[in-house]
Amino acid sequence: MRPGNLLYAQSGGVTAVINATASAVITEARARKIKVLAARNGILGALREELIDTSRESAAAIRALAHTPGGAFGSCRVKLKSVEQDRARYERLLEVLRAHDVRYFLYNGGNDSADTALKVSKLAAEFGYPLTCIGVPKTVDNDLAVTDCCPGFGSAAKYTAVSVREAALDVAAMSETSTKVFVYEAMGRHAGWLSAAAGLAGKGPDEAPHLILFPERPYDEADFLVRVKKIVDRVGYCVVVASEGIRTAEGKFVADAGAGKDAFGHTQLGGVASFLAGRVKDALGLKVHWTLPDYLQRSARHLASKTDVDHAMAVGTAAVRQALSGANATIPVIKRVSQAPYRWKIESAPLEKVANHEKTMPANFLRKDGYGITQAARDYLEPLIRGEAPPPYGRDGMPKYCTLKNTLVKKKLPPWQG
Amino acid sequence: MRPGNLLYAQSGGVTAVINATASAVITEARARKIKVLAARNGILGALREELIDTSRESAAAIRALAHTPGGAFGSCRVKLKSVEQDRARYERLLEVLRAHDVRYFLYNGGNDSADTALKVSKLAAEFGYPLTCIGVPKTVDNDLAVTDCCPGFGSAAKYTAVSVREAALDVAAMSETSTKVFVYEAMGRHAGWLSAAAGLAGKGPDEAPHLILFPERPYDEADFLVRVKKIVDRVGYCVVVASEGIRTAEGKFVADAGAGKDAFGHTQLGGVASFLAGRVKDALGLKVHWTLPDYLQRSARHLASKTDVDHAMAVGTAAVRQALSGANATIPVIKRVSQAPYRWKIESAPLEKVANHEKTMPANFLRKDGYGITQAARDYLEPLIRGEAPPPYGRDGMPKYCTLKNTLVKKKLPPWQG
Repeated sequence: MRPGNLLYAQSGGVTAVINATASAVITEARARKIKVLAARNGILGALREELIDTSRESAAAIRALAHTPGGAFGSCRVKLKSVEQDRARYERLLEVLRAHDVRYFLYNGGNDSADTALKVSKLAAEFGYPLTCIGVPKTVDNDLAVTDCCPGFGSAAKYTAVSVREAALDVAAMSETSTKVFVYEAMGRHAGWLSAAAGLAGKGPDEAPHLILFPERPYDEADFLVRVKKIVDRVGYCVVVASEGIRTAEGKFVADAGAGKDAFGHTQLGGVASFLAGRVKDALGLKVHWTLPDYLQRSARHLASKTDVDHAMAVGTAAVRQALSGANATIPVIKRVSQAPYRWKIESAPLEKVANHEKTMPANFLRKDGYGITQAARDYLEPLIRGEAPPPYGRDGMPKYCTLKNTLVKKKLPPWQG
Repeated sequence: MRPGNLLYAQSGGVTAVINATASAVITEARARKIKVLAARNGILGALREELIDTSRESAAAIRALAHTPGGAFGSCRVKLKSVEQDRARYERLLEVLRAHDVRYFLYNGGNDSADTALKVSKLAAEFGYPLTCIGVPKTVDNDLAVTDCCPGFGSAAKYTAVSVREAALDVAAMSETSTKVFVYEAMGRHAGWLSAAAGLAGKGPDEAPHLILFPERPYDEADFLVRVKKIVDRVGYCVVVASEGIRTAEGKFVADAGAGKDAFGHTQLGGVASFLAGRVKDALGLKVHWTLPDYLQRSARHLASKTDVDHAMAVGTAAVRQALSGANATIPVIKRVSQAPYRWKIESAPLEKVANHEKTMPANFLRKDGYGITQAARDYLEPLIRGEAPPPYGRDGMPKYCTLKNTLVKKKLPPWQG
């Protein structure tokens, strides 16, 4: 019996290490003589029958993929709705999979993607098509259920903690005659995981970051400004980390400049740091600078966490193993086996336990005053940023990131009219 | 004869490697049995007689200083005016130097600092006080005259090129359904050196950055928008790098949000990327993201250029040697001896050739269309970002940056009433 092919697709926002997962998937599948097709630009490529033949890539290229940020095959922000609402797309997807003898579908994304993989699995069963659907976890937001953490988060967390510490050293040196308040805007729509990671930059009340604004707590401007003032008076300067998703007590996003909705229906954000900087300047008359690292924080492969890279590769390998071991509608998850020393293993979870759930930050991770993290949060976060895994650099001083050939396989179906 | 002490002071914006210079100064002076005092918060500390006794720091701390960003003794944005206008401050400075038997004054900064060191030198001669004044170059702006490049610039340049390449990989992967235009704001008030460095992120018209906006060319909005549109149509996305200092044909800063003047009289900038993003969104209706790395770009010691660290340490060592060799009113400068292979050496230049001059970018570094860099620019820039010099990391995943004791020496004078 021919084993059939494996289709791998990336979904949603990419990370510094999602390609490490892809590299591990391809490496493990090759070892087991399974051909890996990769959907161009995620699920859209699967629908359009734009399938990349990864067997055209050299072993060296697949190794280099493991240290290359971004999404090597392309990703997309497209969420399939319920089977009832989106039946034509699900059926087209199965048609493409069947045409290319795909028996294993690995969908690398967040909770929306887990949901899609689950639905595809159910519909394949309904159609009597033998398809194994496996989710592969990924998100800098660290908001997936069941898994202890999400590949992509650890590296973004390390970037955040290191960047905040470095900028704080700069601000400290200049604060007497220059910037007194520095505001760092961290990603995180609903959960303040990356803002919490910034807390690893320092310890004690006088070390930066002095104030963290979490989406889990309402933004209280008067209280915030009083605290900024007190810290500047005491320490000489104040470093603030603010989640892009902070909201007022009335539930309004503090900065919905550039507002709008993306394909997942999320509000698109952007201007918290500049807003807070303006308030500090106007209300306190202090010189303020701010930073919006934006995509830099999730693409900074040069500062990846070794733990995170290890996780990302392990879930890729495990996903292939689960697929070939007869599992279906499962997802590899990371389980923390022990805290000190930090040890972890990969387990398998049902997709339905991950699909569309969102893991929020435990209440005991936030300090009582709401402006910092607790020791419990440090204990959880620190192992995730541990270890360095720098990319190789070229003679030109730049990281040696790879570009794949991305050769499409020949289409077998009429064009998709979706 | 007692050799006298050496006073080292940092001036203006700090960098990822100014402490490497400080480390080299202290190491070289220790080897020659010269005691190094460091002014707390730059020239202000010298005026207030707040002098740090660096002999209290361990050899290990001084070694660690070489990989620690920020300014370990503090810096400040205070420019002394002419001797006529600011006579009381110059005289106080000489009084403090004399009280602490300082015979060598090393001032580590940009062209304003070179000017101050020169004036102090002249006044000391006028007063018959035997003082050697040496400038030590530093600035991420790379705008000092005579020297081939400025310590601090190479690391900021490497940060810029690597960050733009990483973010571009992210944008490329997501562009079909998400962000089409990404704007990166680089530091550089008058000269586009850091924006030019971003050009090292890619080659050819389809590689990011696709458009660079230099302060050397007037911002032509209509032309810019047409180009963005064309690139998005051709490549699928467009990465723009904009200098904070770009101006319209009328000479107005494109973004003088958060305006004001700093102590040097420079206009304070900040919002070019967000402004351009807004224009792209409104005029072209494209989804756009932007980043303002701000201080992250000049404090990112984790991504320092090895060449830059070598330069920074070499000018520190050379400054001490110049001081002890009987030179006065000089500054060590970097001379490029050969391009391929890149070789350099330190020479000595008169302070007056550096003081208050500003090196602009050679005209042949900018592409004819004004939106990119030439091969000549690449040849100049590339050696400066070459090599990696990462800091050691701790078990906690964070760089091991040092904190000095910064013990002040006992004051000998009445408080400064300046």
